[in-house]
Formats: sequence, structure tokens, C-alpha cells
Amino acid sequence: MPDESAFGRDYLQARITAEFSLARHIGVVVERADDTGIVIAAPLVPNANYKGTAFGGSLFSVAVLTGWAWITRYMDSAHIAGDAVIQESTIKYLVPVHGALRATLEPPNTANIEKFGKMLQRAKRGRIRLQVRIHEGQRLATEFDGIYAAALR
Amino acid sequence: MPDESAFGRDYLQARITAEFSLARHIGVVVERADDTGIVIAAPLVPNANYKGTAFGGSLFSVAVLTGWAWITRYMDSAHIAGDAVIQESTIKYLVPVHGALRATLEPPNTANIEKFGKMLQRAKRGRIRLQVRIHEGQRLATEFDGIYAAALR
Repeated sequence: MPDESAFGRDYLQARITAEFSLARHIGVVVERADDTGIVIAAPLVPNANYKGTAFGGSLFSVAVLTGWAWITRYMDSAHIAGDAVIQESTIKYLVPVHGALRATLEPPNTANIEKFGKMLQRAKRGRIRLQVRIHEGQRLATEFDGIYAAALR
Repeated sequence: MPDESAFGRDYLQARITAEFSLARHIGVVVERADDTGIVIAAPLVPNANYKGTAFGGSLFSVAVLTGWAWITRYMDSAHIAGDAVIQESTIKYLVPVHGALRATLEPPNTANIEKFGKMLQRAKRGRIRLQVRIHEGQRLATEFDGIYAAALR
């Protein structure tokens, strides 16, 4: 039986690098992955636009992968063999990002996680809303709200 | 004075390639850019995920650039020296895309375009909502709705 610690930073880095070719190009680095949340970063250079700030499509990509990483870690830790995809999302760009793109996800509340787990068990599919924030230093720069759909394999 | 025909496909291709480094990597090609709308495509390979379908972050990137291309063409054609950025957007993934990513934008209605032009003239900044759709063959696969903000330089 796999050890839950195996579903941490290195595991998610390997999964993302293997499964999303764009993630390699934009330089995605899983900085943290544990029960307190997920932090995924990417350097500015491959993601900069002509103004020297992060391209909106790159900010979206880092955020959407951060949510995917949370669900994948949740399912793997719970020994649920499933796949997750983004279904719908809203993103708000509050201020430009001039440095590294660093996305943070705090886990949804326990009731929502339990509901999601029960949906997966009963219906073999489930949906969950995840929020990801990107900060520029201490300042909130980008807010991402995504609904992910997961299904058992 | 620039000729409006100069703000077509080749012009926008050169702008996007020069100004968004990620656009080069994902292989963005401006297929059409005229008064009837914008079509921008990208090949599947650099944008595929582990399932062999288009990554959500790539679909978002192609869509957001398609909106940017429309505003840039509008401002340049009207001899307005300005820059546009995405401010907020919602994207819905209806079905997976298994081939090229092809995004289509039809111009907003004339009243909204005129309102945007007047805002830029009077306040030196303006906002406009643009809708972009990505099709898989004849089937609508992705719906993108973006609010862009433009400001005079």
C-alpha cells in the first residue's frame, strides 16, 4: 500500500512534468504539496509578455495545474484510481505579476472534501470547487476559481 | 497613415509572436483577421496532456490571445495608440479537443464597439467584453468570455 508521504512534492512534480508538455516549457516547479495545501511556481522569463509581466495564459496555466495537483494528491492518498479535468473556471487579474508566478491552494473545507469523496464512491464521478491565488510579494495578484470534474478509471 | 489592410493576419501574427513568448512555443497561427472576426489556431502536439487532448491552459491561452488580437486590431485600425490586457474571464470546457485548437471571435455588436471607442477617447481607458469559441470539428468545445481593459499609451 502506498505511503501517503509518497504523494508529496516530488511525486506531483513527476506527474505534472510527465503528463502536461506545456508545464515543462513554462517551468512549473511544485514547491509544496501536503495536507495544508499546494504551492506551484514558475519563473517569469518563459511566461513574460512584451511588458515584462506574466502572460494571462501562463497565470491561468499555473493556477489550473495547482488545482489539478490537489485533486490528484487527494485521490491518490485515498487510494481512489481516478482522473480529474477542469470543467469551468473564472479568473480575475487584479494587478500584474512582475516576478515569479507563485500559485497557492488551501484545501476546501472538510465538508466539501467529504462530499466529493462520497460522490466518487457512489456515482464514480464527482465535482469540486477549488480556489487558487497568485501573489506578487504579499499582494494578491490573481484569483482563480475552478470547478473540477473527477471520474474513476 | 497606415492602411487598414495592414492590420490583418500577417500584422497580428508578427505582433503576437514578438510580444508573447508562450505564443511561439504553443505554435499560435493567426488564420484570419478582418472585419468579420479573428481566427487563431495552434497544433495539438505542444498543447496535449497525457490523454492526448488539449490542455485547459493552452485552450485558455489561445482564446485570450484571440480577444487580445481583436482589440489590438480595432485600436490600430482606428489610429488609437493603446494597450489591452485581460482583466477577468470565465471559461467553460464542454468537450475535450482531440485535434488542432481553433479559436473564433465574432466582433461584439456595433453599439458596444462604439461605447468602447468613446470610453477610450473620453477617459483614455475602456473595457469591453469579448466572446471566443473553440470548436472540435463542428462541435462547440470551449466557451471563453473575457473582459479586457485598454488604456491609451
